[in-house]
Amino acid sequence: MWKVLSSKYLLKDRWIAVRSEACVDEKARLVEPYYTFEYPDFVHVLAITPDDQVVLVRQYRHGLGQDILELPGGMQDPEDRTPLAAGLRELEEETGYVSSRSEVIGSYSVDPAKFRNRLHLVLAREAASTGRVRQDPTESIDVVLMPIGDLVQRIRSGQFPNAAHAGLVFCGLLHLARTDPRLARLAGLC
Amino acid sequence: MWKVLSSKYLLKDRWIAVRSEACVDEKARLVEPYYTFEYPDFVHVLAITPDDQVVLVRQYRHGLGQDILELPGGMQDPEDRTPLAAGLRELEEETGYVSSRSEVIGSYSVDPAKFRNRLHLVLAREAASTGRVRQDPTESIDVVLMPIGDLVQRIRSGQFPNAAHAGLVFCGLLHLARTDPRLARLAGLC
Repeated sequence: MWKVLSSKYLLKDRWIAVRSEACVDEKARLVEPYYTFEYPDFVHVLAITPDDQVVLVRQYRHGLGQDILELPGGMQDPEDRTPLAAGLRELEEETGYVSSRSEVIGSYSVDPAKFRNRLHLVLAREAASTGRVRQDPTESIDVVLMPIGDLVQRIRSGQFPNAAHAGLVFCGLLHLARTDPRLARLAGLC
Repeated sequence: MWKVLSSKYLLKDRWIAVRSEACVDEKARLVEPYYTFEYPDFVHVLAITPDDQVVLVRQYRHGLGQDILELPGGMQDPEDRTPLAAGLRELEEETGYVSSRSEVIGSYSVDPAKFRNRLHLVLAREAASTGRVRQDPTESIDVVLMPIGDLVQRIRSGQFPNAAHAGLVFCGLLHLARTDPRLARLAGLC
């Protein structure tokens, strides 16, 4: 555990917060500056329909400069009482899907060196479409339903570039396969 | 694809570069400001010994504020001619392990919305220790050897919090299981 000697924001607005700190590490060495990013927690959803399809979103991501497939989700808003509530809200807004059987199955980090927030994974089973999406005015998101085996094949072949989301799919499948070995076979894991 | 109207650095030093842009999206809407992070490419290594153990590192990560297990790796330096060279250099420096059978098996992103760089995965088979680590003076890294099944069990139970690295382990295992079904069983995937 590092000791923090001083801490200040270099940037802080509605969209970003970058903190610069002077720290002392385990071996009494000064680490300065050390930069971290503050965000609300992220929540993403592995939503699976009764016929074993995953609900995905395709949208342009400006960091990478490409349209890519990802899990639905976003940031936990102040109005969201829990990560589960945030995930289900984002799922319904972005895709029009709801779930009657959902739970948070893990909390991770996108990048533990730089990000101070958490990335929660909601597993949403028995996902069903309401037929209504309510995307933010700034969003342009296509909804893509994909058989779980096809998603794993995409991850294997490099056509699902978000490594953190690939990790969430892995965690979700490991969780599901414990009680449903059929899913491990469907996913092509064996 | 967004059109970039203007672009400037809000922060730029040896450790960080934050760019602020004004963009026009697919529907001709102004997106301003949009922030992205520039880094050299990241390279991480799934190194496996002949007895099916994974070479991991444990270190304090200040974003999360915890000691955690991760894959060895780091940034591609200007002297590294390829992502593969960068990954093998980081593997040897951090852990003392070398590999006689290594390849880049995929290129991903930690967070495609925010990060402009790539995250490459090196698969390093037949990993063997030279007995010499050459960690940076600023690093305090413990080397941990772990049977592949134990690593997957940790990912399943939430004890491997780096979601992007969990994704890389997933990609590596899917790649390996294609030619070595024994590994899928060892990993507990089925």
